[in-house]
Amino acid sequence: MTKLRVHCFTVSLDGFGAGPGQDLENPMGIGGGGLHPWLFGTRTANQMFGREGGAAGIDDDFVARGNENIGAWILGRNMFGPIRGTWPDDNWKGWWGDNPPYHVPVFVLTHHAREPIAMTGGTTFHFVTGGIEAALKLATAAAGGRDIRLGGGVATIQQYLRAGLVDEMHVAMSPVVLGSGESLFAGMDLVKLGYEVASCASSSSVTHYVLKKKA
Amino acid sequence: MTKLRVHCFTVSLDGFGAGPGQDLENPMGIGGGGLHPWLFGTRTANQMFGREGGAAGIDDDFVARGNENIGAWILGRNMFGPIRGTWPDDNWKGWWGDNPPYHVPVFVLTHHAREPIAMTGGTTFHFVTGGIEAALKLATAAAGGRDIRLGGGVATIQQYLRAGLVDEMHVAMSPVVLGSGESLFAGMDLVKLGYEVASCASSSSVTHYVLKKKA
Repeated sequence: MTKLRVHCFTVSLDGFGAGPGQDLENPMGIGGGGLHPWLFGTRTANQMFGREGGAAGIDDDFVARGNENIGAWILGRNMFGPIRGTWPDDNWKGWWGDNPPYHVPVFVLTHHAREPIAMTGGTTFHFVTGGIEAALKLATAAAGGRDIRLGGGVATIQQYLRAGLVDEMHVAMSPVVLGSGESLFAGMDLVKLGYEVASCASSSSVTHYVLKKKA
Repeated sequence: MTKLRVHCFTVSLDGFGAGPGQDLENPMGIGGGGLHPWLFGTRTANQMFGREGGAAGIDDDFVARGNENIGAWILGRNMFGPIRGTWPDDNWKGWWGDNPPYHVPVFVLTHHAREPIAMTGGTTFHFVTGGIEAALKLATAAAGGRDIRLGGGVATIQQYLRAGLVDEMHVAMSPVVLGSGESLFAGMDLVKLGYEVASCASSSSVTHYVLKKKA
């Protein structure tokens, strides 16, 4: 059965998955750059971006696990880029250059239709205007029996959590405060939605929590 | 200089310092009992309650640090007990029995005046109706040059944070979700208030964050 999985979604101690004011210079919002050093230091993340080096260990294990058995991705539009509203042209192709680190079909939630974009390395961006369940159906078909990774941002994850569609969610908490931005937990009753913390592990940089639905 | 310090204030992954529905059977609200196992397992906490045993280690170090150089405490009324509104009589003397684990003057914030209560072991409960700054003044005088420990709950800590009066805050995050209750971070912009995470350490049970004002 295809699962919908969140991995490496990083929040601050005060629960923000991104700072305020996302733009080209601040893809994670203001202050949001403090969230992900743990991730970009890992060997697996370096490999994903074609670089040498990086650390093994707990953090790397979590990054690697997030890539296992993934046949498709779903992203919110704000994770795909900083443009809001109608697409002014076809120039914006994501934050990640010609060869994005997905290598599978990626379904981008948007209110504004756009033709698919085939990138180098197996990534194709598909734009879905029919909502989260439509995107999940398309991603399930594309995944061919493998799982689907749900990227983010916060609003997209919250929509899938509220609909009870997330099977597993790995949240990494970085030791920073952001003060404002997009709060993963605000207004979410994870207990009512049936989730519990199934496991927890810390490195020297970050604490990892894996949430699953209660049996 | 007397400092106002928060120690061992425990929150869930989703930021709740207590669950909903505090009453006599649920001093930490429903589900809130899952927050503090890390604390009650320590050697220092056992000693505080007159028991033998308990573990040394990182968690114990944090508990012990919270007791160092404390000359007075400040508590919100809900941390003192489950009674709301006017005091029906003088029977309620806190959750902690005849010999509470404070052993110094304790200033309880309330809208309803009450005579001080001298307990065994050096704890005296004083009831302050003049607000947080009045309580801080009284506690500072009583502390005689030592620091003041701010207990909780969430609403009390938030009031002191908003007023910029907290010098140091140790938050312990337990690997549970509570879903609802009192959120420490909701509506608080800790960055605007001048706080940052000064240090972070994890045991196998919990992750400790120490927040301080930026220099």
